[in-house]
Amino acid sequence: MPTDLISAIQPNIAALPESGIVEIVNYARERKGLIPLWIGEGDLPTPSFISDAAVSALRDGQTFYTYQRGIPPLRDAIGAYLGRTYGVKVDPERVFVTVGGMQAIKQTIQMLIGPGDELVVPSPVWPNIFNAAQIMRGVVKPVTLTFGNDGWSLDIEKLFAACTDRTKAIFVNTPGNPTGWMMPREDMIALRDFARERGIWLIVDEVYGRLTYDIDHAPSFLEIIEPDDRVVVVNTFSKNWAMTGWRIGWVVAPKELGQVYENLIQYNTSGVPTFLQFGAVAAMNEGESFIAEMRERCRVGREIVSDAFDRLPRVRFARPPGTFYMFFKVDGQPDSRALAFKLADQANVGLAPGSAFGEGGEPFLRLCFCLSTDKLSEAMDRLSGVLR
Amino acid sequence: MPTDLISAIQPNIAALPESGIVEIVNYARERKGLIPLWIGEGDLPTPSFISDAAVSALRDGQTFYTYQRGIPPLRDAIGAYLGRTYGVKVDPERVFVTVGGMQAIKQTIQMLIGPGDELVVPSPVWPNIFNAAQIMRGVVKPVTLTFGNDGWSLDIEKLFAACTDRTKAIFVNTPGNPTGWMMPREDMIALRDFARERGIWLIVDEVYGRLTYDIDHAPSFLEIIEPDDRVVVVNTFSKNWAMTGWRIGWVVAPKELGQVYENLIQYNTSGVPTFLQFGAVAAMNEGESFIAEMRERCRVGREIVSDAFDRLPRVRFARPPGTFYMFFKVDGQPDSRALAFKLADQANVGLAPGSAFGEGGEPFLRLCFCLSTDKLSEAMDRLSGVLR
Repeated sequence: MPTDLISAIQPNIAALPESGIVEIVNYARERKGLIPLWIGEGDLPTPSFISDAAVSALRDGQTFYTYQRGIPPLRDAIGAYLGRTYGVKVDPERVFVTVGGMQAIKQTIQMLIGPGDELVVPSPVWPNIFNAAQIMRGVVKPVTLTFGNDGWSLDIEKLFAACTDRTKAIFVNTPGNPTGWMMPREDMIALRDFARERGIWLIVDEVYGRLTYDIDHAPSFLEIIEPDDRVVVVNTFSKNWAMTGWRIGWVVAPKELGQVYENLIQYNTSGVPTFLQFGAVAAMNEGESFIAEMRERCRVGREIVSDAFDRLPRVRFARPPGTFYMFFKVDGQPDSRALAFKLADQANVGLAPGSAFGEGGEPFLRLCFCLSTDKLSEAMDRLSGVLR
Repeated sequence: MPTDLISAIQPNIAALPESGIVEIVNYARERKGLIPLWIGEGDLPTPSFISDAAVSALRDGQTFYTYQRGIPPLRDAIGAYLGRTYGVKVDPERVFVTVGGMQAIKQTIQMLIGPGDELVVPSPVWPNIFNAAQIMRGVVKPVTLTFGNDGWSLDIEKLFAACTDRTKAIFVNTPGNPTGWMMPREDMIALRDFARERGIWLIVDEVYGRLTYDIDHAPSFLEIIEPDDRVVVVNTFSKNWAMTGWRIGWVVAPKELGQVYENLIQYNTSGVPTFLQFGAVAAMNEGESFIAEMRERCRVGREIVSDAFDRLPRVRFARPPGTFYMFFKVDGQPDSRALAFKLADQANVGLAPGSAFGEGGEPFLRLCFCLSTDKLSEAMDRLSGVLR
């Protein structure tokens, strides 16, 4: 009879860690009255103008296999949206629709990273990047961001110095989860030039590009690259349009990679449900007022959290220029995982430990402030009771 | 400036072939009046009792991140469905919900196949298996099925002889796409025992297990394995319930692999939309009469195609015991791809060339007969005009 099943699978897969975010969620998700700020999503369900479009397509019988690269109206709508937002021309032939931002990243890593190849990543960062690379037997080289009085920053020379002959790609998430760090435009240009010279690919995650507070949108690599640069820009419908549970994302990549992405989509997921894609078309074409609402909700949330933390002398934080996360630390609390469990137990508030986000994440905690004013204020009162 | 992008990606990914099915579809999909029998789906949209359940969950705001292994009511419903259908007990903790059967297979191959590891596969078979293994740098060893007067058969000793020390898994699709071949129960037992003795995993694709014509369901590995055997049974909602475009599938695997599948789902797709999963619950709980309707449609379709081919002396075929495919060849036509293009041009009927399905697929063609009587009869008239 079979024994020891785990030792009979691939060692890199057996060694995949449980998400440190999921661990705390599983620990406390069933607590009565717990206010969950641990996950990267708000408390608004998808707006009805998006759901209605999906329902209409479903009722219309759009339930068959479809275009692997995404339905043409959605690729067109994404191209037009990016054009309007960033003032650039994006040929819809460069757009490929994927099962969420996660699969967008996963397929791009499949395309670029083989066994022993290096992926350089500013860290702390969403940990799924590390694990997606580990599935392909890649080696992740984190380059830590620095937390100072002005918030988070990256020494771009340190990033360049981390690259070797084995470096196939650099992954940059800007604005960044969990820190809210935003790469300055001049660093983006320097990085583009460095990558061009070295033949290194850039995988750029711009999922939080519209969740910014002092400017309309974060600087985008789409504004500074040529269509055939070795750059893949990843995005998702999850955050801006409250569609985390829909699992629809996209990449913008060189047109010449069209057949490659079509194949990767075919042999990974075989595409995204057509009727959901029609919901995404509505998000693209009619979504700007909802984004404005979302940003205002997040702006207010950021103030509520900042005001509460300002009154707690042990808490160290900086207002993030983008994303809907506050990434903070507490004097005298070196173990973020222990503190997250303690806050779940004593404050009945769910936070994600910084240790889940790789190097540089300890001893911070991540708090998602995309929540109604009432609930968020209540959460901050409870946290303040424990952290004062 | 960057040049030659394709040479700058992983060679195994650059070498992925375009699907030979998609190639002919792209060639002729826009032809006016073409009758498409090339894809593995019928012409019925998803029945409304399933769509209604998904719409209801969507209207109810079920649009957030969810359980990576699948929502508990769906895992329970799948366990109960398998229990009813096969007369076995399937603990819902053994069930993991995936983005379609494709991602179910892909994640299982990630788990089992590393660079240079061998996957042994009876062929011809759905070509995506080969390509999923190629993404993980595995080596596929096809073992060809034989076409004789009684239809398709597999020499089980030939299958065993193809296994070496590098063989990590055997993939079996029964009833099989494209041949309709069904593995006899005694061969299943012999294969189970061989695999146990050698410590080889079995990946079993039972997607067409209910589309059978002389028996209620094909023999299932679920009937002959222990819960901790090294066996993963793959299935999907696509075929039985006309949900090809929904992208929901599942695996039944040893419970001990729960955390592994949770991680693979998290780091590949981050799960299946919750509101779609509620549609799948309805399919499981209320779907038997629709399956009966589907089978009757396919049974009639199989007769229409068989009757037409009986009158064509150059056509060689056997009535498949399962699936909704007829896999046939034509005397004097050694090139299935050329013949598929010719039939698209001259008969305005879309068929898939056998060359798309790997070794043993030439010179056959695949025809999907899950279609309304009128359309299928018209297609057979047109094909007969060219093939007589």
